Amino acid sequence: MKRRVVIGAAGLATAGLAAGGAVALGRREEPVPVSGTAGDAVPFYGVRQAGIVTPAQDRLHFVAFDVITKRREDLLAMLESWTAAAARMTAGLDAGTFGAVGGAPEAPPDDTGEAIGLPPSGLTLTIGFGPSLFGRFGLAGKKPEALADLPRFPGDAIDPQISGGDLCIQACAHDPQVAVHAVRNLARIGMGVVSVRWSQLGFGRTSSTSTSQATPRNLFGFKDGTANLKAEETALLDEHLWVREGDGPDWMTGGSYLVTRKIRMMIETWDRTSLTEQEAIVGRTKGEGAPLGRTAEHDEPDLTSDAIAKDAHVRLAHPTQNNNARLLRRGYNFVDGSDGLGRLNAGLFFIAYQRDPRRGFIPVQTSLARHDSMNEYIRHVSSAVFACPPGLAAADDFWGRSLLT
Amino acid sequence: MKRRVVIGAAGLATAGLAAGGAVALGRREEPVPVSGTAGDAVPFYGVRQAGIVTPAQDRLHFVAFDVITKRREDLLAMLESWTAAAARMTAGLDAGTFGAVGGAPEAPPDDTGEAIGLPPSGLTLTIGFGPSLFGRFGLAGKKPEALADLPRFPGDAIDPQISGGDLCIQACAHDPQVAVHAVRNLARIGMGVVSVRWSQLGFGRTSSTSTSQATPRNLFGFKDGTANLKAEETALLDEHLWVREGDGPDWMTGGSYLVTRKIRMMIETWDRTSLTEQEAIVGRTKGEGAPLGRTAEHDEPDLTSDAIAKDAHVRLAHPTQNNNARLLRRGYNFVDGSDGLGRLNAGLFFIAYQRDPRRGFIPVQTSLARHDSMNEYIRHVSSAVFACPPGLAAADDFWGRSLLT
Repeated sequence: MKRRVVIGAAGLATAGLAAGGAVALGRREEPVPVSGTAGDAVPFYGVRQAGIVTPAQDRLHFVAFDVITKRREDLLAMLESWTAAAARMTAGLDAGTFGAVGGAPEAPPDDTGEAIGLPPSGLTLTIGFGPSLFGRFGLAGKKPEALADLPRFPGDAIDPQISGGDLCIQACAHDPQVAVHAVRNLARIGMGVVSVRWSQLGFGRTSSTSTSQATPRNLFGFKDGTANLKAEETALLDEHLWVREGDGPDWMTGGSYLVTRKIRMMIETWDRTSLTEQEAIVGRTKGEGAPLGRTAEHDEPDLTSDAIAKDAHVRLAHPTQNNNARLLRRGYNFVDGSDGLGRLNAGLFFIAYQRDPRRGFIPVQTSLARHDSMNEYIRHVSSAVFACPPGLAAADDFWGRSLLT
Repeated sequence: MKRRVVIGAAGLATAGLAAGGAVALGRREEPVPVSGTAGDAVPFYGVRQAGIVTPAQDRLHFVAFDVITKRREDLLAMLESWTAAAARMTAGLDAGTFGAVGGAPEAPPDDTGEAIGLPPSGLTLTIGFGPSLFGRFGLAGKKPEALADLPRFPGDAIDPQISGGDLCIQACAHDPQVAVHAVRNLARIGMGVVSVRWSQLGFGRTSSTSTSQATPRNLFGFKDGTANLKAEETALLDEHLWVREGDGPDWMTGGSYLVTRKIRMMIETWDRTSLTEQEAIVGRTKGEGAPLGRTAEHDEPDLTSDAIAKDAHVRLAHPTQNNNARLLRRGYNFVDGSDGLGRLNAGLFFIAYQRDPRRGFIPVQTSLARHDSMNEYIRHVSSAVFACPPGLAAADDFWGRSLLT
């Protein structure tokens, strides 16, 4: 029994090409962002991990794991198995052999089956390592200084049960079933070695990561991410996104630091706020998304103008107000049902990549947490930071090898 | 400021055509199921409510409301406003006037904005009335006997906080942001009259409702809904799906009864079960979905054969074992993050429509709850039943009018 009978052969060819292509590129060239159609595969192997500058897919399943084994060799073996499964799944294949041919019918299947027949759907799987991992497995000396736990910001209402984690996987795809399938199979492979700490589904990407994408809207109804770093801005990415040689330990050179924040939005309160007030808080018009006092979305905000209030979000988050800090955001909207008090449990699952959180997210959020007039309508309920190493150049490498061996 | 500037005019034309089309059809003809592309609109007006035999869209946002007003006229006025907003949103328009032109900038916008620029995306909005509504507003005499609270089934682990409800809205669309936008705007319009009791997001429809659709897979990895009632089987729909004259009160003639069950799946336990055991429990092969002992998905199960165990799901759910009970299912997979115990909080949000639950869901579930070998891997955690009246023939009618006036 073959998974995805029709596309199987093509998928395998894609995986092979991707690995070969990355090797041929060498580690000094940038991969070209893949757009294509929603069903296509995104190469798994490459200089960078996919899922960072990859044009943001429409759906997210993010998961953080606790490592529950005490044995480094078990963790290493799991990471090698994860890598093989991730290479297969991102190419549109099963996580492993499915069913009787090559597998034993009396054993659990090596793939859970719910993605049979579905195309690769732009699946990317991006791994990160959390600060808490480095207290074990003899890793203390390899912990980057940039990978410090985030400070407590004013107004934070962080729930530790849905925060942190030793490992994370960010699964993005155009089909939620494909993203969920990938996370679930990695969790299955990791049984006894890792345990799911928390996970989050998202939809409706709230940032563009490529100039080829239109700016989407968050659940406040506003365009979000107009001024985001874009895949095409390679000089800016080198300065603000990718970790450089000498920034910290070698295993992170070429990688990036990931900050996640689950931001609950007080939807019902916002919806009772006037349009004028909403626009004053954001500092942009709601329809076009233009900075107040200007006319088009991509016009530069005039921060000398009184049109943009002192505590407007667009002003406080602007790079010129934050020592030129820039982030690559790729967050998602979420709705987790309702909260038992007649309100939707909804908001933004914020995801940002950067070269160093100490010069990226932390100063920006410090300013926002103190002054942003939007704070009345939001609450940060979860927080995490992870070190995401560079990509794997070829199929003989695996996730975490450079860190753990 | 106009919502969906480009498609606004086309959307209005569609809405007009839909209303006109329904009138021309008269109330005795079946509407033709709409497939088209994922961006298209599904007509709101018609003999039947859309979202029942409409080919199942990919995404769900289901919401149940408590009615918190004591005044019948407030409830009526809200339902009239809901209907107008639903007709607009299903046509790809705003819920109401957005922004300054025609609205006051000092008032909250009549649309929350997050669907600006998105196409209709096959949005359907289906309303239902729960048993608890009929104890108020002088409705006792209009309560159908078929609309009884569901009994407690063996093994039920129902959480009342995510069960029941006075009203429900089933929002289905190909884009979750469009479904969420619709529910959120109806909740906004209903402030002070209704309060969200519970809501549920779903993805990856787990049943086909049209012969034009391939059978999808649930999170057990199996094809689900092979033997479902289909939109094209009009004689069977008349017998099993649509309420007939004389079945109960007139206001439900042409409608259907909706049962929802949130079924948590013990994903991690299932994933440790052998393929042979999984197939024995379901009574079908996992790859093709064929009944055991047969070769193709749509082969009729041979219930005289020992190949299908006495406690296999396919046998116990089969119409011949349940006095010929047939349901139209249009459930969705769900993943609500994880449960704090290292497990995914995932499963099936079961939705079924029928002419009478007493001859549909209740006997089938009674048999399944007692004997189904799948019960070891599932838990029913929420339950609800609603009466869904027929469709609105024209724009001068509104939801609930035939019930409440």
